[in-house]
Amino acid sequence: MIIDCHGHYTTAPAAHQRFRDAQIAGLRDPAAAPKAAARISDDEIRETIEANQLRLQKERGADLTIFSPRASAMGHHVGDEALSSAWTRANNDLIRRVVDLYPKSFVGVCQLPQSPGVPIAHSIHELERSVRELGFVGCNLNPDPSGGHWNSPPLTDRSWYPFYEKMVELDVPAMVHVSASCNPNFHATGAHYINADTTAFMQFIEGDLFHDFPALRFIIPHGGGAVPYHWGRYRGLADMLKRPPLADHVMDNVFFDTCVYHQPGIDLLVRVIDNKNILFGSEMVGAVRGIDPTTGFHFDDTKRYVDALDISAADKRNIFEANARRVFPRLDRMLAERGL
Amino acid sequence: MIIDCHGHYTTAPAAHQRFRDAQIAGLRDPAAAPKAAARISDDEIRETIEANQLRLQKERGADLTIFSPRASAMGHHVGDEALSSAWTRANNDLIRRVVDLYPKSFVGVCQLPQSPGVPIAHSIHELERSVRELGFVGCNLNPDPSGGHWNSPPLTDRSWYPFYEKMVELDVPAMVHVSASCNPNFHATGAHYINADTTAFMQFIEGDLFHDFPALRFIIPHGGGAVPYHWGRYRGLADMLKRPPLADHVMDNVFFDTCVYHQPGIDLLVRVIDNKNILFGSEMVGAVRGIDPTTGFHFDDTKRYVDALDISAADKRNIFEANARRVFPRLDRMLAERGL
Repeated sequence: MIIDCHGHYTTAPAAHQRFRDAQIAGLRDPAAAPKAAARISDDEIRETIEANQLRLQKERGADLTIFSPRASAMGHHVGDEALSSAWTRANNDLIRRVVDLYPKSFVGVCQLPQSPGVPIAHSIHELERSVRELGFVGCNLNPDPSGGHWNSPPLTDRSWYPFYEKMVELDVPAMVHVSASCNPNFHATGAHYINADTTAFMQFIEGDLFHDFPALRFIIPHGGGAVPYHWGRYRGLADMLKRPPLADHVMDNVFFDTCVYHQPGIDLLVRVIDNKNILFGSEMVGAVRGIDPTTGFHFDDTKRYVDALDISAADKRNIFEANARRVFPRLDRMLAERGL
Repeated sequence: MIIDCHGHYTTAPAAHQRFRDAQIAGLRDPAAAPKAAARISDDEIRETIEANQLRLQKERGADLTIFSPRASAMGHHVGDEALSSAWTRANNDLIRRVVDLYPKSFVGVCQLPQSPGVPIAHSIHELERSVRELGFVGCNLNPDPSGGHWNSPPLTDRSWYPFYEKMVELDVPAMVHVSASCNPNFHATGAHYINADTTAFMQFIEGDLFHDFPALRFIIPHGGGAVPYHWGRYRGLADMLKRPPLADHVMDNVFFDTCVYHQPGIDLLVRVIDNKNILFGSEMVGAVRGIDPTTGFHFDDTKRYVDALDISAADKRNIFEANARRVFPRLDRMLAERGL
């Protein structure tokens, strides 16, 4: 089977966005604040999913998407903890409804109610709710809840540890994923996302996080940011910083997806990164929605690039399925129970 | 001939660093502030250059390095404009002395006296001095003088325009190069440098700078950050943002160096980026100084990677020489006057 490890509900019903707009309006005018999350019918969810993610799954040949709320809309920098928390619950509940409607096609990953300056421990409750009550298999962790000001401590700082302890206890990985940028220097999907990926990996090199948490697992999306292209630099920096070789120091715990939107990029990814560390992902419907004029196919139809790789069928199966099942053990058990 | 477009005087004599240390000490205790730049003998310069950059040039087979002060030590975020200005002059004067001692092997590129919140127009004087008096052929422009807080306007903002007007008038390019990071999220050479490269390129896509300055030229170092690896993403984002194709929109004005420290990265670079946009560079003696255990050669011996490329001899000559002479016309004239 083919598992897409990176899909967002970017096409949620309009009422959901109106709820968010009202939340934001409520920051200035408390009377405008919404009393509760949007009322959305199953038909509205079906319509937005069947016309988009489910249609593209079928057209492109994936079977199951690990599905989370729209990353750019997480907006952890907007408002305070209470607002982030209400928005996060509404998002995660909506993902659960998608999964309930299409249990064979989607499995949930949660947003977290992060907020600048608020201890990450406050996100533990929503992680537990998402995993234990909603049946989710992972979370998206934002290394910069400020939205481009980068004033939180690095991911290796001990202040993140209580959350990591819960991740390990629940046996769920996190995708390191920032949200929108409110810094005019950083275009969200063109700079902030890729920079965050690169930054997180270098933090892992500098730190010793996986010595403290050998079972902790992170997916760094967008093909690992700049990392595979600069793999020599990172191997060399690990050496200069007197860290162990990357294979021992971080690559038992860090995985890259295939959200790299052209064949040469995917070719490089599989050339330098061990097969066991690569998970199929498309980020669709997402950051780049157009058709590549040089190929005639959508930029984010990443399955084509993996299909075209000159690697063994077994290695392709690892990228498409086995690695995701190893990184998301709760998903693996869920599939095994279905005889898959 | 072989021109290395990216070298820094990372091995400057110890007295130069003592001057810097005294400057920084003077921030707390004015009595500790130095009266003047360090007194450094020609022999000290010879010793540090001949044991390092010049030795490596010879060993690795380059002829000429476009040479600038140590990037990580520019430290624009340290102290105020006056301190940055004094440090910058000392650095540029030192580069001039290297060039005077080894005019066949080095040509100068200047640091700028940037300082957070200070208009970039204040850097025009040092650019003019460096080009007209010191004979330099370009400059290093820091898109984030805050050192990792990114609170300046993007490079496409009109506040940068007075400086660009002078660059065009003098016919010199800028390398987009940040300095050290004082943000614990960003390792300097492992995250901040690469992020800045990626960020600058995306700013150029979003903006319309080269419509306003058709003759403006930037080198984005470190192989263009994450850009070539994500070339499909950038082509797709230009399309989504309704910008012209990248070839027309930015690639007459933006160039990438070859500071990518492994063969697969360089292979990707030349596969996706037009030959005319690639300049040989090593960044040595620089960010990564060790030996790659997988090859037995230094990570930053980038000439080996270019030599090994499966491209025509003419294309290699463009990367090694012709492109640099086109991007740095003052260097080209200088070499032509020498019959080169």
